[in-house]
Amino acid sequence: MSAAGSLDPERAARVVLSRVGEPGEPRLTGLVTELGAEAVLASLRDQGANGELNDDLAARLADVDPRAELERAQAQGIRFVTPADDEWPSALDDLAHASSLHERGGVPVALWAKGPGRLDELTGSAVAVVGSRSATTYGASVAGEMGAVLGETGHAVVSGAAFGIDQAAHRGALAVRGPTIAVLACGVDRAYPAAHRQLLDYIADVGVVVSEAAPGCAPTKIRFLARNRLIAAMSHGTVVVEAAIRSGALNTASWAAGLSRVLMGVPGPVNSAPSVGVHQLIRTRGALLVTDGHEVLEAVAPVGRHTVGRLQEPARPRDLLTPSQRQVLDAVPLQQGAPAGSIARAAGLSPVRVQETLADLLSGGFVEHAAGRWRLAADMG
Amino acid sequence: MSAAGSLDPERAARVVLSRVGEPGEPRLTGLVTELGAEAVLASLRDQGANGELNDDLAARLADVDPRAELERAQAQGIRFVTPADDEWPSALDDLAHASSLHERGGVPVALWAKGPGRLDELTGSAVAVVGSRSATTYGASVAGEMGAVLGETGHAVVSGAAFGIDQAAHRGALAVRGPTIAVLACGVDRAYPAAHRQLLDYIADVGVVVSEAAPGCAPTKIRFLARNRLIAAMSHGTVVVEAAIRSGALNTASWAAGLSRVLMGVPGPVNSAPSVGVHQLIRTRGALLVTDGHEVLEAVAPVGRHTVGRLQEPARPRDLLTPSQRQVLDAVPLQQGAPAGSIARAAGLSPVRVQETLADLLSGGFVEHAAGRWRLAADMG
Repeated sequence: MSAAGSLDPERAARVVLSRVGEPGEPRLTGLVTELGAEAVLASLRDQGANGELNDDLAARLADVDPRAELERAQAQGIRFVTPADDEWPSALDDLAHASSLHERGGVPVALWAKGPGRLDELTGSAVAVVGSRSATTYGASVAGEMGAVLGETGHAVVSGAAFGIDQAAHRGALAVRGPTIAVLACGVDRAYPAAHRQLLDYIADVGVVVSEAAPGCAPTKIRFLARNRLIAAMSHGTVVVEAAIRSGALNTASWAAGLSRVLMGVPGPVNSAPSVGVHQLIRTRGALLVTDGHEVLEAVAPVGRHTVGRLQEPARPRDLLTPSQRQVLDAVPLQQGAPAGSIARAAGLSPVRVQETLADLLSGGFVEHAAGRWRLAADMG
Repeated sequence: MSAAGSLDPERAARVVLSRVGEPGEPRLTGLVTELGAEAVLASLRDQGANGELNDDLAARLADVDPRAELERAQAQGIRFVTPADDEWPSALDDLAHASSLHERGGVPVALWAKGPGRLDELTGSAVAVVGSRSATTYGASVAGEMGAVLGETGHAVVSGAAFGIDQAAHRGALAVRGPTIAVLACGVDRAYPAAHRQLLDYIADVGVVVSEAAPGCAPTKIRFLARNRLIAAMSHGTVVVEAAIRSGALNTASWAAGLSRVLMGVPGPVNSAPSVGVHQLIRTRGALLVTDGHEVLEAVAPVGRHTVGRLQEPARPRDLLTPSQRQVLDAVPLQQGAPAGSIARAAGLSPVRVQETLADLLSGGFVEHAAGRWRLAADMG
């Protein structure tokens, strides 16, 4: 779309509402979903003309020049994406039916996006990996590994570019050239936290940085709450890697649950504060315990597409024994050893047969023999 | 019961079968539950007389002198407990209806017990705490804490006296003078592992050491498998603290599940091998994730008897703010700050009111003010 071309009135209205409205303000998003932005904007302007709006809002409604907004954005490599665009991630439409949380909710009026990643394509199989800003080395390492496994299998990693778990998840995906989406609470032209300027620039180079807040907007607490719903909605599932009791990641988890997305949590030491919130999600919110990226894929993928092999140790030589050899081995004492006759009784087999079998087990290194007594080899206990 | 008194024939038969049979041999336990020990023993003796038994077994059946067995045991402070005794832990009778595992199963023919603890009383509210012999410091510490919480609340800690988790759980209970039951795979007069001689002596002094295997019997692999079913059956629930993929604790967990006991698991770092089996129990076997003894009590206790308070951090000053103060605070940018007018717009409140509120928030330490811009105080982000 060239900003110099003709500007569709619905699109123009969404630019204005995106600029003057607060992200996720549920009355606004609800009305726009129901009536369309053009009608909502017309109604607001009528109210302004009738003195029914606060003067400041009325003035700002008049001030916004949608064409100029789009030109400024385009000059910064930022595009404006609405439900009418092919790039619109249709998963966000589920927000129309979800309950508000903390007075935020609804389908965004529009998104501002920066970067080569196409939102519709990336969100088709995206997974959110979120968590505490005060992550531990353990949590960051698990999030990074998870981001890498998701990235390697072509699943976009959605997160919030915050310190701690978020950045580790993004970096894990980036390290394997996997797709990743950073969803911000501020305008996509800003960097929050400032220390992540480089990370965000890199994501904008190879993935996509997206926000419901218009360019230039500062991050505020309510914008974080509004942002969290987009992270959950754009993803098939949300993994919480570490989260203390009051972590914002638990807000994202609530959105995921409310949107019937797969909610997952990574366990950790029970005495680690950043794992307490995750354990609570698993205990009381039905979050699925996951320990690596493969288990995440198994949980979010359509049935049969990903199946994690049953974890098992490599076969031990013991598995190659015949049933009767095992029967004898099971009857050999661990500690002080026993004569063959006593083992035969415990095994319920004839002493002669047991004597032969013990010789086989001895040559296989399963048992030891000394002073007429047989015992399990040291590493078999 | 004095061994010198008259000896009930059913009781005498159980002594003989306990001495010559293998613990948990399911044909034997099944027949004894169905027909009684006297009938089973009579039938075995008939078979012996007809040459239908292996000579050795026939000879041993003839050799056992039940009265002498009981006298020897009594001299060592060991008592013989059968379903006819008041002390019999009736929870074990559930084993009559559970499927065999690894060819072990059924209600024990009898138990041999040592120590002042009464099995019927202690198992009324007992909890099994089991896990890996190769426990980590973390796992041992969690098991010890859990043992202490259970012990303090009068719940007997049932475990296997093995290295690692088992011993930590017993010691946790002992440290608070709580009741504990060690269930052995060998005779209660033996110490396995030998390094736990002192621990077992202490448990026999203040709690109870119990086994299905007759005094003198050595620990064998099948006896461990038989033993695990008793640990699970004697307890209202089983907590697995750490367990690698092939840990014997997972066998105990299978028994707990098969007996419809509460199965619980303590999470740990996903990259810790001894936590892998526990995570698998939680993921695939429906084990309840528990993080401390209080959560264990909540899970095993009758509804309403124990309720864990919802974990939460102490209230922050923020919780004392009025709704409109919070509304303003939520609109204050985290990073670079904003003028009051911009915050008023974001909050949807009048600039005058916002200005006043910001002053309140400043005096409360919630926000900072510099160069005409307001931002969140450093510790509020």
